[in-house]
Parts: sequence; structure tokens; C-alpha cells
Amino acid sequence: MREPRGFREVLEAVQRGEWTVEEGFRALGRLSAEDLGYARLDHHRALRKGFPEVVYCEGKTPEQAAEILERLARQGGNVLGTRAEPRVAELLRMRVPECEYDPLARTVVIRQEPRRKIGDVLVVCAGTSDLPVAREAMVTAELMGARVELLADVGVAGLHRLLTHLDRLYRARVIVVVAGMEGALVSVVAGLVDKPVIGVPTSVGYGAQWQGLTPLMGMLASCAPGVAVVNIDNGFGAGYMAALINGLGESA
Amino acid sequence: MREPRGFREVLEAVQRGEWTVEEGFRALGRLSAEDLGYARLDHHRALRKGFPEVVYCEGKTPEQAAEILERLARQGGNVLGTRAEPRVAELLRMRVPECEYDPLARTVVIRQEPRRKIGDVLVVCAGTSDLPVAREAMVTAELMGARVELLADVGVAGLHRLLTHLDRLYRARVIVVVAGMEGALVSVVAGLVDKPVIGVPTSVGYGAQWQGLTPLMGMLASCAPGVAVVNIDNGFGAGYMAALINGLGESA
Amino acid sequence: MREPRGFREVLEAVQRGEWTVEEGFRALGRLSAEDLGYARLDHHRALRKGFPEVVYCEGKTPEQAAEILERLARQGGNVLGTRAEPRVAELLRMRVPECEYDPLARTVVIRQEPRRKIGDVLVVCAGTSDLPVAREAMVTAELMGARVELLADVGVAGLHRLLTHLDRLYRARVIVVVAGMEGALVSVVAGLVDKPVIGVPTSVGYGAQWQGLTPLMGMLASCAPGVAVVNIDNGFGAGYMAALINGLGESA
Amino acid sequence: MREPRGFREVLEAVQRGEWTVEEGFRALGRLSAEDLGYARLDHHRALRKGFPEVVYCEGKTPEQAAEILERLARQGGNVLGTRAEPRVAELLRMRVPECEYDPLARTVVIRQEPRRKIGDVLVVCAGTSDLPVAREAMVTAELMGARVELLADVGVAGLHRLLTHLDRLYRARVIVVVAGMEGALVSVVAGLVDKPVIGVPTSVGYGAQWQGLTPLMGMLASCAPGVAVVNIDNGFGAGYMAALINGLGESA
Amino acid sequence: MREPRGFREVLEAVQRGEWTVEEGFRALGRLSAEDLGYARLDHHRALRKGFPEVVYCEGKTPEQAAEILERLARQGGNVLGTRAEPRVAELLRMRVPECEYDPLARTVVIRQEPRRKIGDVLVVCAGTSDLPVAREAMVTAELMGARVELLADVGVAGLHRLLTHLDRLYRARVIVVVAGMEGALVSVVAGLVDKPVIGVPTSVGYGAQWQGLTPLMGMLASCAPGVAVVNIDNGFGAGYMAALINGLGESA
Amino acid sequence: MREPRGFREVLEAVQRGEWTVEEGFRALGRLSAEDLGYARLDHHRALRKGFPEVVYCEGKTPEQAAEILERLARQGGNVLGTRAEPRVAELLRMRVPECEYDPLARTVVIRQEPRRKIGDVLVVCAGTSDLPVAREAMVTAELMGARVELLADVGVAGLHRLLTHLDRLYRARVIVVVAGMEGALVSVVAGLVDKPVIGVPTSVGYGAQWQGLTPLMGMLASCAPGVAVVNIDNGFGAGYMAALINGLGESA
Amino acid sequence: MREPRGFREVLEAVQRGEWTVEEGFRALGRLSAEDLGYARLDHHRALRKGFPEVVYCEGKTPEQAAEILERLARQGGNVLGTRAEPRVAELLRMRVPECEYDPLARTVVIRQEPRRKIGDVLVVCAGTSDLPVAREAMVTAELMGARVELLADVGVAGLHRLLTHLDRLYRARVIVVVAGMEGALVSVVAGLVDKPVIGVPTSVGYGAQWQGLTPLMGMLASCAPGVAVVNIDNGFGAGYMAALINGLGESA
Amino acid sequence: MREPRGFREVLEAVQRGEWTVEEGFRALGRLSAEDLGYARLDHHRALRKGFPEVVYCEGKTPEQAAEILERLARQGGNVLGTRAEPRVAELLRMRVPECEYDPLARTVVIRQEPRRKIGDVLVVCAGTSDLPVAREAMVTAELMGARVELLADVGVAGLHRLLTHLDRLYRARVIVVVAGMEGALVSVVAGLVDKPVIGVPTSVGYGAQWQGLTPLMGMLASCAPGVAVVNIDNGFGAGYMAALINGLGESA
Repeated sequence: MREPRGFREVLEAVQRGEWTVEEGFRALGRLSAEDLGYARLDHHRALRKGFPEVVYCEGKTPEQAAEILERLARQGGNVLGTRAEPRVAELLRMRVPECEYDPLARTVVIRQEPRRKIGDVLVVCAGTSDLPVAREAMVTAELMGARVELLADVGVAGLHRLLTHLDRLYRARVIVVVAGMEGALVSVVAGLVDKPVIGVPTSVGYGAQWQGLTPLMGMLASCAPGVAVVNIDNGFGAGYMAALINGLGESA
Repeated sequence: MREPRGFREVLEAVQRGEWTVEEGFRALGRLSAEDLGYARLDHHRALRKGFPEVVYCEGKTPEQAAEILERLARQGGNVLGTRAEPRVAELLRMRVPECEYDPLARTVVIRQEPRRKIGDVLVVCAGTSDLPVAREAMVTAELMGARVELLADVGVAGLHRLLTHLDRLYRARVIVVVAGMEGALVSVVAGLVDKPVIGVPTSVGYGAQWQGLTPLMGMLASCAPGVAVVNIDNGFGAGYMAALINGLGESA
Repeated sequence: MREPRGFREVLEAVQRGEWTVEEGFRALGRLSAEDLGYARLDHHRALRKGFPEVVYCEGKTPEQAAEILERLARQGGNVLGTRAEPRVAELLRMRVPECEYDPLARTVVIRQEPRRKIGDVLVVCAGTSDLPVAREAMVTAELMGARVELLADVGVAGLHRLLTHLDRLYRARVIVVVAGMEGALVSVVAGLVDKPVIGVPTSVGYGAQWQGLTPLMGMLASCAPGVAVVNIDNGFGAGYMAALINGLGESA
Repeated sequence: MREPRGFREVLEAVQRGEWTVEEGFRALGRLSAEDLGYARLDHHRALRKGFPEVVYCEGKTPEQAAEILERLARQGGNVLGTRAEPRVAELLRMRVPECEYDPLARTVVIRQEPRRKIGDVLVVCAGTSDLPVAREAMVTAELMGARVELLADVGVAGLHRLLTHLDRLYRARVIVVVAGMEGALVSVVAGLVDKPVIGVPTSVGYGAQWQGLTPLMGMLASCAPGVAVVNIDNGFGAGYMAALINGLGESA
Repeated sequence: MREPRGFREVLEAVQRGEWTVEEGFRALGRLSAEDLGYARLDHHRALRKGFPEVVYCEGKTPEQAAEILERLARQGGNVLGTRAEPRVAELLRMRVPECEYDPLARTVVIRQEPRRKIGDVLVVCAGTSDLPVAREAMVTAELMGARVELLADVGVAGLHRLLTHLDRLYRARVIVVVAGMEGALVSVVAGLVDKPVIGVPTSVGYGAQWQGLTPLMGMLASCAPGVAVVNIDNGFGAGYMAALINGLGESA
Repeated sequence: MREPRGFREVLEAVQRGEWTVEEGFRALGRLSAEDLGYARLDHHRALRKGFPEVVYCEGKTPEQAAEILERLARQGGNVLGTRAEPRVAELLRMRVPECEYDPLARTVVIRQEPRRKIGDVLVVCAGTSDLPVAREAMVTAELMGARVELLADVGVAGLHRLLTHLDRLYRARVIVVVAGMEGALVSVVAGLVDKPVIGVPTSVGYGAQWQGLTPLMGMLASCAPGVAVVNIDNGFGAGYMAALINGLGESA
Repeated sequence: MREPRGFREVLEAVQRGEWTVEEGFRALGRLSAEDLGYARLDHHRALRKGFPEVVYCEGKTPEQAAEILERLARQGGNVLGTRAEPRVAELLRMRVPECEYDPLARTVVIRQEPRRKIGDVLVVCAGTSDLPVAREAMVTAELMGARVELLADVGVAGLHRLLTHLDRLYRARVIVVVAGMEGALVSVVAGLVDKPVIGVPTSVGYGAQWQGLTPLMGMLASCAPGVAVVNIDNGFGAGYMAALINGLGESA
Repeated sequence: MREPRGFREVLEAVQRGEWTVEEGFRALGRLSAEDLGYARLDHHRALRKGFPEVVYCEGKTPEQAAEILERLARQGGNVLGTRAEPRVAELLRMRVPECEYDPLARTVVIRQEPRRKIGDVLVVCAGTSDLPVAREAMVTAELMGARVELLADVGVAGLHRLLTHLDRLYRARVIVVVAGMEGALVSVVAGLVDKPVIGVPTSVGYGAQWQGLTPLMGMLASCAPGVAVVNIDNGFGAGYMAALINGLGESA
């Protein structure tokens, strides 16, 4: 008999008496190696319906990036391109006219699977130079179904700016804090609230800021509990994590 | 009139006609500087009822640590001491007999405010040497009201050990991954689930492991989204963050 | 009654008998959260009258930088732009003709609040390549009201150049030492005087100079007391700090 | 004629006609090489009268440290020993009974030149583990004539503790901020005041705190101007610098 | 019917007609999740028959280490304990008298599955202080079936010592080079032969040797091709890799 | 007699009685210094027949690189240029029309000594951005006579992609794993197979990836034995090492 | 009387009786502060006659560099410009036609004080990419009067190339070793000779070479005594040091 | 015929006609591999007569160290043990009573080949804590025949102490500068003299001194030419290098 194409065929052959149990047993072993592991692992991706497919565009030509994005879009879900130059969006727009480009976040989005916005993700941003990273976090979390707001320019060097927004901080379900320089804002915010805080160090600064290493280490060594940290300038990762957490608060 | 001791006294004086509005206005200004700011900021701590008071015992003598813990316990909430030598618990037990010491986690706990365990925090641990950090995370999250389980000895060098527990991974609400060496387990786990993953790098290893710097950086640079990271060996921080997130899934 | 707009209105309502003390008390609580904290913290900024508003121009387009600088200037105080390309000054000059550009320091200044120059800040500079940073320190300190002088090209490789200026060193109230390479000049100067010395490591050098890390660490590990250090190439920070210190010597 | 012992003798010999101008000229050259340079440079040390002689006791045996301290004390000024074990004080007390040992700061002081306390140095300390460094700064600044006060346990994780002391902060002439973990307290304090702030990073913390490297870099990269930094755990250096600055505010 | 315990039982039930194909199909799905993946992945471990089970003893108490080693030995294969103190061997010998302890390599070996020694692994060692690491590599490779020899004390500072052994170098199938200090021996050896060279940097040295970081980076940046590197002081890893490679040369 | 040109001439002269033993002895000494050492060391290069001559083109002008490559080609063996811009190939093609350029790997190859492809080298590649490095490894190993295949885009964030290729992994004789980000793929692969694994960290990633330092350290600290590592982005080195190892499995 | 211009005038005034000894004494004090220190320190520069004046051209415009070089040339000695682009030489040649530019070393030389070449400095160079640094060392040492030779392309990956030049190595008085990659050549050379060896690490390489940090640390940690090291790519410094040492061997 | 023991025997056998030229030729090849290379390379060690044999005692037991030292002493030359605990000397003294132990330098010396002291090596030492390293340099250089003097406690924080010894500096042939903290003394000394300066960074200091990394980098980045550097705390290496250089000035 020819090699069966799945479990069902094996069972049928055994049922029909064409194969002995022993023959079926060996066939199942071969199958599991090729199909089952894959199927099972991939199964949970089906559960992730609604999660965007993500393309990191840096290091690809605009042509390549646009093509990959278009191909993914054909499968029907939401698609997100990060670190995309304007040229990527230009090229993509010819084929997918409804794609949206955010020049600050450098993201391109194809929205095919609209989701009701839920929860309350607050992105807090220390300085105006940190805004691109904050914006990338916002675009990502929104595409994943979170209601997102921004609280900008509230660095600790002018503490009153932050303190006048205490109630906003208290209301949020998850807070993303985007800060360059020494990143002290994360410690201050986490000391004020009892909600999970995601710290995003940015490379904004010079000298002893070491391209973001200093706020990265500072956020990790923070004296305030309730903080976890993502990679330098990784607005995408923070938005993704925040949306995952935010989703838990809804009809869990 | 003598300096009023609070807002109420000022209002009463104005009401009684003893003070003009102007006099009351100035008094309110003085008061707000000393009392109000404090009261307001501290107000949210009342909301944090149930959160443990935490004492980091390292660098304190056992006598000091025990005394601080006892004093905090008198205020009635749950109390947690981390990185505590056995001697701390011995001393504390003389005065607070019901305190619990975990020699692996090196935690001491005084449980005075029992909480129903909710949600599902899964602590995944790469090797047996990482267990103390994993245990610290578990004790912390449990004290904050989370239902916590451990999945131990599932390092990526023997992947089948992890894969036989896929369903356990899928079921969790939040996952804490504790891993030393190169910390690759975080990327593997985060690639398998769609729940928030907290990575805890440990200092287990030698040479190019650099006391945990290598898995720390590895977890931050991870190719899998949905990960945020805490400080090296910071089981407490991971447990605290996990419990905060876990809490969102309940009647939020 | 509608929500009162300030403390005064609450007091008046209580005085008029429209509100009970209890109603007034609760209104004060609400108000303090929104207005008082802000007002109080911001109060000290009024004391800082004369301090320049500062804009770090790097990472902004010349158009953005010029616009921000102009807007700040409308409020009437002194304005300082650092790390500004010539184009920023060109654009700004169209709208604020009296602005001053220093091509070496890369600063742009709008002087609207002239201050009598006081004290004696001496900026000591190791090599000619360190001059831009030294000049940034000078512009900053001067704008904040300090009398400032420069002692240039006195690196330790030719010690006699420094020693012929001992009296100049002795006379200063605060000394800023700007040095690249290994930064040894700070130790030598601090060993010669009994005045506060601000060290500014620069990124001048190559190889083992590591973009200023080497003189930064060297200045911190200096064998001479009486030294404190600012970030690499941070002429602005050094000038600001020196002006603050210098101001203490005057009718404090 | 024998070699003259000083300038005066050369002049007298020339005046008496015993030496020609040429002979005198050469003698002056020889003298200046051996005496003048030294005399001149050392002259300013006389101006530093009242400054303590300082002995760094670490790496010396208690016997050596005690002996050096005693010998310095015989010259009559104030003497300060830092990083001294109790044994140093025990040994020293046998010979200099009035010496004072501070077990927290690990300083030993011989006070022979009392100074009126002037100015207002405020030492702000983030956590109780940072107290030894804070105390070293206080002992040093006090010995140099500064009036010094301590504001302890005001870390940013509980911001209200700091804000209730705003007036104390506003009143100080110089502020020393001692902080471990991520050192964010420096940025917060410097953002609140317009006085010079000296940051002292401490090695308190673990993992990503890297024995103080993280708060050191954080303080240098701080977003708030008006900060300068000393070496990790260098309470002595901060106290010395603060006392120098504090002295400028008095009858300068 | 009760849940079947394996593929065979499912097939038998279908064969007997007790279950429909559909019921069998679903049972297979459940089984594959729990057993198959494991079985398949673990299958290749069966292929690794003869590979030692390895226990890293550092960070375990001697009692724990000895117990784990004994338990593994009961399964019948070869067992290797690395970084074992003498006490581990003492305890183990009571229960497994034939275990062998190497005090230099700090290894303990239980040999239950003798293998014919094949191939030719040469361990080249720069200095006498590098011998423990070299010896660990030798014990490991031998236990895995390799014929192993040592060439010791042939550091590049005395090049003739190495060159008199050229023929020995040429003869080897794989070469492990163990070197501390700057690790230059790896480049020299790899430049002399056309066989795979495994570099093992050691922590032998001081100062700029940075506990092995310097030879580690040096070996990676080596100018000679044909080199790959393992972790600092990782004699075990080098021996394991060498034995894997050596095995390819035999009846492959 | 004139100076002899080799050992043979000396022996002949002695045999013929033209030279005494003493004269021959001294001549041999002179010869050995100039010729023998060289000859002997170089002798093994003859054994390396078939190994390509390699030119690292980076840092050379295209003209220089092309000329060197052509000159080497004249000696008849295979020639490999790495990190070559297209311009190098353009220039070389004018003189050596049969040269082959791979734009992805940036290699140029002159094939003059065809070798039968043997063995089985598998290059496993985590992400599409790692492909250039993987391709460089493939070109190198193939030129050295190895049969090479690629398994691409199997990063651990989607583990099922790797697991569906288990049989391919099991079949290989040597595996090269090319991975950027955190490089976890190496640990996973090495945990699945019992063949030598060469890890190649790449500089693909940002922030905490530190231009490849993070996966480099991660691969070295890997929890899976059977791994050795080459320099960051060093596809050439990995391919060379893999080909050396692969060759051992053939008619050794 | 007017302020005297030097020691001599003071002596003459005292001799003439115009000034008392006391007046002369005070004048000498003033003078010594301004002139003597300088004169004495500068005196040794006169001894350095023949040493080139050196201009580091990087970071200066070609116009600035050319002008500084010309001005120094007017004082009559040898002048050396390092890291000079061709444009510097072009501009300088218009005014100083006899200036010599070395495009490889990027040096420009004005030779006005010819020196007999003495001694024997050997510059040993690992790879062709290290040649620019080697050449800078050669130009510098030659200008300072050393006889200099080059031994190029003798990296340790092909050891026979070095060993065929043993006699050349033995003959040298000082050896400069220029090496990138891992810098192993320094250890090998220093192990072969008993003359001072100056190591110059270069930034040639990639990845784990860390822009020269790896060979720098390797040379410092070298197992061979008789080595001292200069900064990365610092051919000038090595040539200067070598010439100083070489000069000691001649009629010192 | 049996394998010949040297060239001479081969020639004799050929002369006697016992061997053909061909047989002699092959025998010479075998011999050259084993004897010639060694002989030639080792020849220059004979030239090094008088150079001490050196044993680095750290990491060896006192028994091992003493035995190795004794064995070397039997060959008749000078022997030097560095980093030796007192116990090494105690044990050695039983067998070699005339050995000399220096407790500060931690060196043990066996002097069997007395050399006339020549030249002038000056060891300059910044602080008293640097003395052990300075002393190790002195012992080493003296044993190699140099006349050595010490100039101690002349750190740059009190520059006059150094300047009063200018003539001593000018007189030296080679200068070794030993300095911890930031190591600025090297730049100052090298700026004052025109002799080769060997910098020895020490690990004296704390915090930003990073166990000597800071002065190491500072000395390498020094603004003064004429400096080369050895490893941290490497007094031996500096003394060795200084003695090599010093020897060139004598009857070279």
C-alpha cells in the first residue's frame, strides 16, 4: 500500500484489515514526525487570529518590504510593517491603496480584521525625541485591539507635569513608559501606580547614555517593583506586550 | 489664631467668621504644601491593600531585618522578606511564631491578610540551579493572591521535556520564565504561546555567561514578541509583575 | 452648586453659608489634586527667573528647532539653543534678528533679560580640539550671569603652559576643566587649587579613548579631591553647574 | 662662597659685592629649581588651612593607619581617616584619646581646629543601605566647616516622602544626593531645585546595577541640568566638593 | 472505553471494531500531544547510546551531587561529573566503589559501558596553570571513546617547544588548544595544521586578561581559519566537541 | 666550493670526499636556518592542496582586490574572495571570465581544481536577514569539497518550522547554525542532534543585540554541549571549519 | 622703578643700590611665578632639539592643518603632520614646496634639520591591511633619526614566513610589531628575541575584534615578557617610543 | 643502521659509504624536524645568559613553587619568583639558604650570576599603595643588571612633590611610572622628559577605577608621546622591559 497521507488513512486501513496493527503502528510513527508536530504547534497560531503579522523592514529594500507586506495581506489578517521608510508605503500603496503609513512611528499598517478597541493602555513619554518610539508602541497596541492614549513630555526634570496627570495614571490598565537619557521616569511612574509598567529605554541622549544602555540598565535596576523592560527603542515589543496584558482584563 | 491643623479647621474658622477668605486662602496654601501632596500620593497606597510590604534583607544584620519585619507586621498586612538567611527567620519566629521561611527561595513571609488565589501564573524553570529564583517568584506571586504552578527542568537542550507540557503552557494566564546559561528558553516559550511572558535571567553559569549579563541581553534581543524582562536573579520582581498582570484577568 | 474653580471660591461659599464645612472639605480635596500640586511645584520655577530656557537642537530639523526657540522667546526670558547647526540660526534670524549664533560652540542665544556679570568662572581647556565644548560651557555660564574667562591649550603634556597661569587659577571662584585624551588635566588642576572643579571629559581622541569613556572614568577616579564630573562633551551642563555655584558667592 | 640657602642670601651677597651679577644669576637658577617651584606651589596649601588632612585607610593595616593619623595630628590641623575599621580607632584612641569614630561612616576624626559651621549642605539619601556613604559625606563636609543635615529614605519609589520635604530642599545651598539602584533620585531632586546638586552613585543593588555603574551612568546622562557626579560610593569626595561650594556662599 | 495508553492500543481498538475511525482519530491527537513528540525527540537520545550523562557539580552540595550521580549510574551508561570537589568522590565511592576521581580535572567518572578508543584527539596546553582545563577535556573525550593525548607547556613565548612537535600536530585528527593569557597559541597551531582546532580560552592570567575574556575574543578574532571556540575554562565542552568530530573519522 | 643549494648537494660533496664531515656539518647548519624551517613548515601546505587561497576584500580597493585574486589564480588552485563588492567581480571578469560572483554572499570564486562533493554539511539559518552570512558559509564549504544544503527561516520564535525538519537535521554530518538576535537557535539545534554544531552569531538586530555580541556570548554560554563558535558574521570561518570536519568522515 | 624683566635686572638694581634686599626679594618672587617655572620646564625642550613638532591633523580642516604646519616650519626644526588627508599636503606644498607626503601613512613631513640615521628599528607587520599604521611608525622614527626597516606580511597564520627572517629579528635594536585581528604576532616575536618590543594593536578585523580592543588586551596580557604597548592604530606613538629607545644605544 | 643522533653522524655514515645520499637525505629531514628547529630557536636563549628564569607563583601551592624554583636554581643562573607568599620563601630557604625574599614586592630571588649594575632606571610611584608593584619592578630590573632608584609618593594631586625632583627625572635613562587611581602621573612625567617612559597601571582605587582598567586606558590614550604601557599591576613586566631598554645604553 502506498504511504498514507494522515492518521485517518492509517486507521481506515487497519479497520479494513488491510494493515496489521504493527504496520499501522510504524506508519503512525513516520507520520507524526512529519505532520503531527507541525500541526499541533501550529494549532495555537490559529488561536492567535487577530494578531498582526509583523515585518521588520530595516535591512530590506523598499521593494522587498512592500512585496512581503502585500503577500501577507493576501492571507486576510492585519499586517504591520515596522521601521519602514516612506518609500515602502509609497510602493505598497500602488497595490494596497488602503494601507496606512505613520511617518513618526515609521509603521505601515494594513487593517483587514477590525477589532473593537478594549481596555486602557497608557503610553507615557519622557521627551519629544522619544515620540517615535512611543508612537510605534501605540500603533502596535491599537492594531492588536487595545484602546491607547498618550501622555507626552512629562520627564522627571519637571515633575509637576507628571503629577498633574496622576488620575490619568491611576485609571490605566497597563502603562508603557518610553524614556531616553537616564530613564528615571519609569521608576517614578511605577512608584505611583499599582498596574503593570512596561519600560522602553530609548537611545535618545549622548555620551554616558551609550545608545540606550544606560536607561536600559537603570530600568532593570529600578527601585520600584511592578516594572518589566523591553529592548532599546523597541516600541513594537512594548506595544505588543501591553496589548497582551491589556487583553487579560477583558472577559477573561 | 494658632496655625490650623487641617483643611477642616480652616473652613470652620471661615464659617465662624473668625477668618476672612483671604486669611483662609493663605492658610490653605501653607497646608497643602505640607499635608495634601503627601495625602494624595499616599492615597493610592490605600488602594494597594493586600500588596505585601517588602524588605530586602541582604546587607542588613539578621537582627535588623527581623526587627523591621516584625514592626511592619504590627500594621496588619502581609509582609515579605527576600534574600533572608535562616537566622532572620529564627529571630523572627521568637516574636512572630506563625512566620514561614522558605530556605530555597530565602524568603520569610508573615501572612495576615489571606487572599483567595486567582488566575493562573506558570513559572517555567530551565535548570535545577535556577530553582531558588523561580521559588522566590512563586512565593511573591502567591502572597499577592495568584494561583501559581511550577514547570521545572525544561531547558532547551532537551526540548521534548518542554513540548510534552504544551497544554500546560497554553492554559496559563501569565508565564514567568527563569533561565540562566544563555536564557534561550524565553524565546522558545514566547514563540509557543500568546500570553505575556516575563523573563528572569539568572546568574547560573560561568565564563561568557558574565553573571547573568548574557541571558539578560539575550532575552531583551529575543526574536519572539510578547516578552518583557526583569533584573538578573530578580525572582521577586518577576513574581510581583506576574501577579499584577494576573490580577487583571479577574473581574477587572 | 457648580464645581468651584479654586480655593478662594470654596472659602467664599462656606463663608456665605452656601456650603457646609463637609462640602467644602471634599471640594478642597478634589481641587488640590488638580491644581495645588502643580502650582506648588511650579512656584520654584518663578524663582528661577533669569535662568535660560534651553533647547537641545540635535535630532530636530532646523525648522523645528527654530520654531521652538522663537516660541520660547515670546515669553520674554533668555533662550539658549545648543548643538545647533548654522541653518537653525539662519532660520531664526528671519524672525528674531537679534539672536546670536556661535559657530564654534554651536549655540544660538536670544538675550532678552540682561544680567550683570558676577563672580569668576574660569574655563580651562586642554587642547584646541576641546574648544567647542569649552565654548559651549562659556556661552551657557555667561547667559546665566557669570563672568567667564578661558585658559586654552594648557594640556599636561606641556606642564609649563599651565604653571605660568597659576595666579589665574588661584583667583577663580569655580573652574571648569575641559579635556579629552586621558583627561589628566583635571587631576592636575584640582591638585593646585582649593576651589570647586567641574570636569568635562570630551570625545577627542581615538582607540583606547573610547569616545570619552576613558577621560570620564579617569576624572571620576581622580586622586585629587574637589572634583565633580558631567557627561562627555556636556559643555552646557558644566557651564550651568558652574553658574549655579558661582552665583552662591554673590550676596547669597 | 658656600651655596646660598635662599633668594635673600643671593641678594645680600650681590649687594655686598661678594658676588657679581652673573654669579648671582646662576645661583638663582639653581635655587629656583629646588626651592622656588616647591615653595610657590606649596604656598596655596597654606591658604587651605582648616582643610583636613585625609587618610584613605583601606589597604593599610590598622597599625599603619593609626600611626599615619597620629603623625598627621601632631602638625596641629584637623585629620580625617576614611574607610577605617573599628580597630583603627581603637589603636588611635590609645594615643589620641579625643579622636571620634563613626561606625556607620567608618570615619575617624581628630578635631584640633574647630570651625564655626556655616551655610547649609543637605545630604539626601535614597535608601537605608545608602546611609554609610551619606554619613561619610556628612562627616567630611562638617569637618570642613559646613552646617550639614540629612534627609533619609526618600527614594523615588515613594515619591510623596520626598515631596513633603520640598521646603527643606528649597532652603539648602548645596545638595548631595546619595542613591544606589538606578539612581533616579538625582534627576528628580535636580528637577525640583535651582541649587548645585552633587550626585553620589552607590553600589547598593545587584545584577544590572553592576556595582554602581548603572546609577553612575544614569546620573551623568540625567535629563536635569545642575548636576555633577563623583565616583561610586565616594561620600568623602561629595562632602568635600559640597563644602567647597558651600564655602563660596559665605563672605566670599 | 478507558483512555488508551499508546498508539498500539488505539489501533487494536479500531481493528477490533470497538472504536470508529473518528474516535481513533481523536484519541491519536490526544496521544501525540503527550507521548509522540516526546518519543520522537527522545528517540535520537537512544542513538546517543554511549554518550555520558553529565552532571555539573558546582553549586550543588557534595551530598546532592553524589546522589544524582549514583542515580544516573543505575541506568547503566557512562556517567561524568564535572567541577566536582574531592568530597563528591568520597561520598560516591561508598556506594559506587569503582568510580574514578581525577583531582586535577575535578571530574568523577563511572565507567559502565566501555568503548574501544578510536581516532586521535590531541590536547595542546599552553602553560601548567591551564592543565586542569586540559585534563577536563581529556577525561571527557576519552569517556566518549576517543584516543586522546596531551602536549603540554608549549606556549608561544618559547616557540621551539611547539615546533619540535610538528609531527605530532600533523598526525592528529582534531586538536584542542587550551590557553590562558592572550591565547595566541590557537592562532599559531591553526596556522600549522589543516585539521579542525577547538580553542578553549582559560581564565589564567590577571589584569587585562579579564578572567578569560581576552583570549576568548582573541581566539574568535584569530587570523587563522579552521578554529572554533568554546566558553572560558570549558574543558568539558571542548572534549565533547572534539569527540563528536573525532567520531566522524571512523567508519562514517 | 660554492655554497650548496640543498641537503642533497652537501651529502654528495661529502660522499665524493670533496668536503670533510666538519665542512658539511657547518653547511647543513646554514641551510637549515634558511631553507629547512621554511621548507618543512611549508610542506604541510602542499598537503592542503585543494584548499582555496582566500582574500578578504574589505578595506582594499576593487582594483587591488581584483589584481590579487588574479595573481593567485595564476598558481592554479581554487581562489576565494570574501566581502567583495560587485565592482571586484566586474574588474576580475575582464581577465578571468569564468569567475563566479555571489551577490548575496558577496563572494567571488575562481574554480580551477574541481573536487567531488562529499559528506553532508547542513547550514541552518534563523531569519532572512542572516542569509548573506549563511550563504558565505555555503560557498566556502562547497569550494572545499563539501556537499552543502541550506535550511532557512527556522528561527525559534516559530519552533514548528524547525521541528518539521528533524530528519534533515539527523542526517547531517556537521551543522552550521547562523543566527542573529539572541542566537537561541544554536542551543535548540544542538539539543536535538548528536553531531558537531558550529555557531555563527550575526550582527542582525538592534539595541541589546550589540552588533552580535549578545548571540556570540549566548552561543558560548549555551546549555547544550556539542557547540563551538566562530566570530560574528564569520560565515567564511564557519564554512571552512565545517568543511574540515566534514572531510574527516570520508575515507579517513 | 619699573617692574624688572628678569632675574638679572633685579640683581643689577640691588647691586647698584637702587633697591634694598627686601625689594629685590619680593620682585624675585613675582618673577619666579611668571618666568622661572616656565623657563625651567621649557629648558628641557631645548634639549629635545631635533625632535619633530607634531600636528595631529584629524578634526582640523585642511586649511587649518596646512597653516599650523607652515607656521611651525618657520621655527626651523623638523615638522610632522599625522593623519593628514592629501588635501593638506596639496595646500602646504604651495607654501613649502619641499614638504613630503606619504599617502599610505597619511603623514606630511617638512625636513629642515637632517639627522644621521642611527641604530636599527625593525617594524614587523602582520597583514597588508596593517601597513598604514606600520608606515606611520616608520616615518616618525626616521624623522627622529632612526635607521628603520620593514618586515611585512608575516602573520602567525603562516609562521614559516616569520621564521625565515629570524636573523633579521635578532639583529634589530628595537622592534615595533603592528598587528590587527587577535595580535598574536607580538607574543611570538617577543618570545623569539631579547630586545624591547613595542606592540601596536590595529583596528583591522571585525566582530569580536572590537575595533582593536581585542589585540590591545591580548598584547597587554601576553605570555611573553619584554613587551610594552601603545594605543590602537597609534603608529606615531610606537615610532616615537622606538626612536627614543633606539637613541639610547648610540653614544648615550 | 640505527637512527643517527645528529647531523654529524649522518655525514659520517655517508662519508663511510654506509648510507646512500638518498638515505642520508631522508635522515636529515627527520632530524631537522626534531633537533634543528629547536637548536636554532633555542640558540638565542644562550644569548640571553644572565636573564633570570622567572616563575609566576600565584596559583601554585607553596610546595610546588619552592620546588620549581630550586630545580631552576640548579642550572646555575639567576632565578626570580613573583607573586610569592612568605611560605614559598620559607620552604625554599631550607634548601637554598641564600635566597632573598622581599615581602613588599612578594618576590623571591636566587642570585647566582652577579652582574655589574649599569645605566639608570628610575621607578616613579604615585601613592604608597602602589609601592608593591613598584618594588616588583625594581627587583626585576636589578636582577637583570640595571641600576635602579625609586621616587615615591609623587602623585599629581600634589604636583610640587614631583617638580622638586625634575633633575632626578632628567637624569634617568628609562622611567617606569607606577600609578593607580586615574594614572595621570604618566602623562605628566612623559610631558617633562625625553626618555622612554613605561607606564604601569595599578588596581589601586575603587568604583570607576575598575580594578585598573581606567588608568590602563588613560595611559594608552595619554596626550604625551614617549609612553608605552604594560598590564595592570605588572611590575615584573615593566622592570623587565626597562632593563632591556636600559641595557641598550651600555656598550651596545
